[in-house]
Amino acid sequence: MSGYVSYIGVGHRFRKNKESMSEFMDNGDAVQDRDHKFLTQAIGEAYKGVECKDGGPFGAVVVRNDEVVVSCHNMVLRNTDPTAHAEVTAIREACKKLNQIELSDCEIYASCEPCPMCFGAIHLSRIKWLYETEMVTCVYFVMGKQRLVYGAKAEAAIAIGFDDFIADALRGTGFYQKANLEIKQADGTGAVIAEQVFEKTKEKFTLY
Amino acid sequence: MSGYVSYIGVGHRFRKNKESMSEFMDNGDAVQDRDHKFLTQAIGEAYKGVECKDGGPFGAVVVRNDEVVVSCHNMVLRNTDPTAHAEVTAIREACKKLNQIELSDCEIYASCEPCPMCFGAIHLSRIKWLYETEMVTCVYFVMGKQRLVYGAKAEAAIAIGFDDFIADALRGTGFYQKANLEIKQADGTGAVIAEQVFEKTKEKFTLY
Repeated sequence: MSGYVSYIGVGHRFRKNKESMSEFMDNGDAVQDRDHKFLTQAIGEAYKGVECKDGGPFGAVVVRNDEVVVSCHNMVLRNTDPTAHAEVTAIREACKKLNQIELSDCEIYASCEPCPMCFGAIHLSRIKWLYETEMVTCVYFVMGKQRLVYGAKAEAAIAIGFDDFIADALRGTGFYQKANLEIKQADGTGAVIAEQVFEKTKEKFTLY
Repeated sequence: MSGYVSYIGVGHRFRKNKESMSEFMDNGDAVQDRDHKFLTQAIGEAYKGVECKDGGPFGAVVVRNDEVVVSCHNMVLRNTDPTAHAEVTAIREACKKLNQIELSDCEIYASCEPCPMCFGAIHLSRIKWLYETEMVTCVYFVMGKQRLVYGAKAEAAIAIGFDDFIADALRGTGFYQKANLEIKQADGTGAVIAEQVFEKTKEKFTLY
């Protein structure tokens, strides 16, 4: 279940992707312009969300083949849902729109460094950026690497009062989340029957 | 924005909570029985979710004042939504049912150690377990501490093929999530305009 997944595409299947990727991989300025364009849209969403009173000033855009799939903002206040951060909302909406669980060959642009919940959601959505690594007689070996581009650092949000746990995700720490949480693994039988669930059900569901 | 929040309640406001908490805080067996009861319900949800083909074998229960608010399971496959883990679903549903963003004075029981996304969602929901710390002439000082009780360790899920990033959360690491992710902070202007969002909007929204 690695974040890296290899795809083998025959002929034209990945041609469009290959061409568009090659185009900007050869040109640092073009990559930067492209990133700037989608990031600017995510920032626009952040302002829009506040204007609409939907939630805090955070936006996220999911992109596939240089086209915006969805452009969303924080909906926490509108939906009375603490999980409705911009990135989580964008992932949910993109999956709904594309009717797929995985957002393979998509990228995500976020106006701010993602919090641990959003960072986890990005990982789970398996957002990937496809690029050609090798071509052997019409068979493209394409590697998928997850790609996240963000604007503001967590500290900019924390400075105006947002939860400092935002800073946990990219720093790879669980410091703020664990500081005030009582975490208890069940004793004895509880733990045993909970772990048995996996062995007893493993043939009965599609793994995602 | 700490997970610890102090409440000052006058007279009967926290009496029910105080009494029920005192009752089982004086008795380790009672706490264990109570935890076992709610954890067993979360485990039952895990089986139910697989039977219904809604998703993987994970369940979560939100409890308030010894009563179940919601009892949910993983809905990833049913909803085509990689964010619809049991804990996230339970938090969303509990907020909807109680019509509040914060799940103050609630606890969460999860059949398995939560993944980083769910762990983040638990933190954001500010699930707390209220207990009396002091009583001064009819004024109760009640402290809220986030509380999570889980059953299986992440390794039990990973052993049947689930994403090893589950293990990142409680260990306080970002190891698996970061291993294959290209993370890029925007250059120059992009970062500047993204950080300006916070200063420009800080008076215009309710912080959550």
